[in-house]
Amino acid sequence: MDVDHVRIFDTTLRDGEQAPGCTMTLEEKLEVARQLARMRVDIIEAGFPAASPGDWAAVHEIAREVGTPDGPTIAALARANKDDIDKAWTAIQPAAHKRIHTFMSTSDIHLEHQFRKSRGEALELIGEMVSYARSLCDDVEFSPMDATRSDPEYLFQALKIAVECGATTLNIPDTVGYSTPQEYGDLIAAIRQNVPGADKVIISTHCHDDLGVAVANSLAGVYAGARQIECTINGIGERAGNASLEEVVMALHTREQFYGLKTQVVTRELARASRTVSSFIGVPVPPNKAIVGANTFAHESGIHQDGVLKNRMTYEIMSAETVGLDGNALILGKHSGRHAFRKHVEAMGYDLNDEDFQHVFARFKDLCDRKKRVDDRDIEALISGEIQHTPQIYKLAHVQYSSGTGMIPTATVRLLGPDETEQIDSALGTGPVDAIYQAINRMINRPNELIEFSIKAITEGLDAVAEVTVRIREQSEEARTVDDPTSINLTGKRAVQQIFSGYGIHTDSVLAAAEAYMGALNKMLAAGQARINAEAAAYAAGYTDE
Amino acid sequence: MDVDHVRIFDTTLRDGEQAPGCTMTLEEKLEVARQLARMRVDIIEAGFPAASPGDWAAVHEIAREVGTPDGPTIAALARANKDDIDKAWTAIQPAAHKRIHTFMSTSDIHLEHQFRKSRGEALELIGEMVSYARSLCDDVEFSPMDATRSDPEYLFQALKIAVECGATTLNIPDTVGYSTPQEYGDLIAAIRQNVPGADKVIISTHCHDDLGVAVANSLAGVYAGARQIECTINGIGERAGNASLEEVVMALHTREQFYGLKTQVVTRELARASRTVSSFIGVPVPPNKAIVGANTFAHESGIHQDGVLKNRMTYEIMSAETVGLDGNALILGKHSGRHAFRKHVEAMGYDLNDEDFQHVFARFKDLCDRKKRVDDRDIEALISGEIQHTPQIYKLAHVQYSSGTGMIPTATVRLLGPDETEQIDSALGTGPVDAIYQAINRMINRPNELIEFSIKAITEGLDAVAEVTVRIREQSEEARTVDDPTSINLTGKRAVQQIFSGYGIHTDSVLAAAEAYMGALNKMLAAGQARINAEAAAYAAGYTDE
Repeated sequence: MDVDHVRIFDTTLRDGEQAPGCTMTLEEKLEVARQLARMRVDIIEAGFPAASPGDWAAVHEIAREVGTPDGPTIAALARANKDDIDKAWTAIQPAAHKRIHTFMSTSDIHLEHQFRKSRGEALELIGEMVSYARSLCDDVEFSPMDATRSDPEYLFQALKIAVECGATTLNIPDTVGYSTPQEYGDLIAAIRQNVPGADKVIISTHCHDDLGVAVANSLAGVYAGARQIECTINGIGERAGNASLEEVVMALHTREQFYGLKTQVVTRELARASRTVSSFIGVPVPPNKAIVGANTFAHESGIHQDGVLKNRMTYEIMSAETVGLDGNALILGKHSGRHAFRKHVEAMGYDLNDEDFQHVFARFKDLCDRKKRVDDRDIEALISGEIQHTPQIYKLAHVQYSSGTGMIPTATVRLLGPDETEQIDSALGTGPVDAIYQAINRMINRPNELIEFSIKAITEGLDAVAEVTVRIREQSEEARTVDDPTSINLTGKRAVQQIFSGYGIHTDSVLAAAEAYMGALNKMLAAGQARINAEAAAYAAGYTDE
Repeated sequence: MDVDHVRIFDTTLRDGEQAPGCTMTLEEKLEVARQLARMRVDIIEAGFPAASPGDWAAVHEIAREVGTPDGPTIAALARANKDDIDKAWTAIQPAAHKRIHTFMSTSDIHLEHQFRKSRGEALELIGEMVSYARSLCDDVEFSPMDATRSDPEYLFQALKIAVECGATTLNIPDTVGYSTPQEYGDLIAAIRQNVPGADKVIISTHCHDDLGVAVANSLAGVYAGARQIECTINGIGERAGNASLEEVVMALHTREQFYGLKTQVVTRELARASRTVSSFIGVPVPPNKAIVGANTFAHESGIHQDGVLKNRMTYEIMSAETVGLDGNALILGKHSGRHAFRKHVEAMGYDLNDEDFQHVFARFKDLCDRKKRVDDRDIEALISGEIQHTPQIYKLAHVQYSSGTGMIPTATVRLLGPDETEQIDSALGTGPVDAIYQAINRMINRPNELIEFSIKAITEGLDAVAEVTVRIREQSEEARTVDDPTSINLTGKRAVQQIFSGYGIHTDSVLAAAEAYMGALNKMLAAGQARINAEAAAYAAGYTDE
């Protein structure tokens, strides 16, 4: 590796997926991992295997499919204990390039209030666990959690021990997003100066955006000598999220002369990565988001328009093409055949199995009947909708609704349940969507709370496809006892009440909303079964209880 | 003023409103200005009066209502010519504290390709125009546009002339968002060192977020001695937007020990300011947005939850209360009287006239019938919807629609037109919303393109209120000739084809969508008339042609 190469460590699937409502299904995680590999990130942190057998199974599957010899390193997170490290190690086994990432807090506030360990005890643990991880894996990353609020002298000691015990990457988390760019850069420089052996390992940044400076902190870190940045697509993650991958990559790319550093990321794939993650988790990208927002390359004021018409350089420092925001209008239409469509989808980078392809193609033809101009964004939405593989415990067989000014919104829904049993019912509501949801709830009696509902048009025009995202929170007794009540003490990433998201697309926004709700409900109903299946798969493949 | 006081210069109504689709009506601008005053920003840049008589009239009205003796300074933007400066000056006349903000590019790329002036000609112009502005107004701000891409020596010369000619604030725009925090901080320090008289004036930052570091650049600027930050609510603005006001304020507030600086902003008003702007312009705030995003104070992972339960300080560096994100559930319900409701609305900080209050109260009662729990966010949405004062050229008298799986979405709409003329028609569409829009278009035949459509639930629960935002672009011949074709050369902030947004709220999302479209169409229809009225008002109050 060149000395000016900055490794991009993507943690969308670990720190990102940890954020409220950002939970992804296995298929969604795999598609994100495939896009990250296409984009050539150096390391994918695929998850936290000890959190649950389902998390273990997802890391294992990503390692198997995406961790090819010429693909990215697959990393897994582990707390500083043998069981976590074992689970991380077994989960990443299928990958050609593997990394164990273990962490332990070094700030007094964390040690005292959360871990109830002395400084000495923590150091001992760090030494033992880094050594143990290194006995399994050549590539070991150690993170002193809450590093930026730790006593620097103690932090240096902890890092020295980690290096002595075989850590190959030292990651410096600004866990609570408290640091300023000056402080963070100074800390990285101080670590390089004060930790014996720091010159033999890679220093890494991990910054949170609570004060809006995660990207600047990461850049200050590499400016001071760090050579890995931990980041996420669209900056998702706990609270205000992590440093946004697209921003750090494009800042280094656009200001290469200033930083003198390079990444190997294929910048043209940034826009699609952003859209993929946004549609899976239902978090919109605002138009003024740097790099991938819809307005990034738009110029409204007369003064700027005038300048851009005369010379693009007057108001633009990068081009829409560089980040893949230049449209790619699809030349296919309703008369396009299966073969041409398959080639187009492959050119877009998707590798669909036959069953998925048939579904996507059928929906594409259906869409062409209803919409004049189908472009790549529509196709991406169709594929995203299809490959989520929502379990179809109940299917929407028929929906009808009517309403109007001064009328009472009424809907009738027919459901196909397990074994093709049919149920039909109607209900009224405060609007057609509510009426449909009430009718469904009459048939599937599983209490839940709707915590988010949003619809947006994917493309322009009156015949645009509507994309609906809903999130529901389970309210049953079962949900409250899913995790062992004691598991909130450091195990189990899941909240006590699980949140399920559903996604629907249709030119009829109300039908899209019905689809989305059905999807979320099916996920909720399937969650119990899925937990059992994932556990079985994980145990069969070597997952063990503590 | 204390030496550690950082002035917050809000440009939401100028640079923010300039962004594609962020155009606000006069009433919306006034409400934003009132919220900015409530929040105690130091300076409000209210607009660019020379752009159009409508912009002039908006600045004039804000100066009149919000520019009270104990209120903020009202600033207006002007290019470096006498006519622009005159228009800025007459527009801000009613304010107790006035500022003229004039600008001229200093980068060679701008001078050569856009302005076609030599460096010497530009310096001469700067001297003349700053002197002229200062002859009118004691408080003059000068901005060398594209400062960060200017030759530093030439930039210092330009700033020296501006100071000599009476500028009291020197603002340093990173117009294209190209700077890194190190460069920007160094530039501010160099200006303080190399511009004679710089110690007698206020240095100001103005940073764009193209590379994701606008907030960090602004902070680097004040760290290096600047004492004013130009910023916008939610970071809206050209392309990737400006530095976000809530982030710079909370970074200075949370890290006061590091920066040693203060602002006078009332942080508890930040969340409402964010929601107000978001609903007016229809740009959503993503959940992972720093400070005001919905997840900012949420903790999902077991490890973080565990820590927060033991001691909030383990994972939180500020509280939800500080930024006003702590809910305020309304204790009012359907049995609340007019008086109690008025008191509550006043406590929320709104000062509604009787007519607006009656409308809001009627909608509140209506909402209480349909929704169990009405909270402050619902009330804010009702008020935002009401005070937009959309001209009611056509009114939706009746809407009915029906659709379903395998059915053809059909809608019937009755409109009340000018002079209470009635029209009724039906249409089919790709969904119920499309069917309604098609029926309306059959009656009001004004070609337009739907460029954005989004629905979101304002609050949780199945009976949530849906908030719909649409944006349409006019396609008529008239639109294309609104501005003089030559006006794109530096005059006129409006694009050639105008964009109109509409906003609707209702528990029935389809009816909300109908309302939103009608609002946008009415704005489009009224725009011609409004232009004539605003021109008349502006001319009557002293606006003159060049």
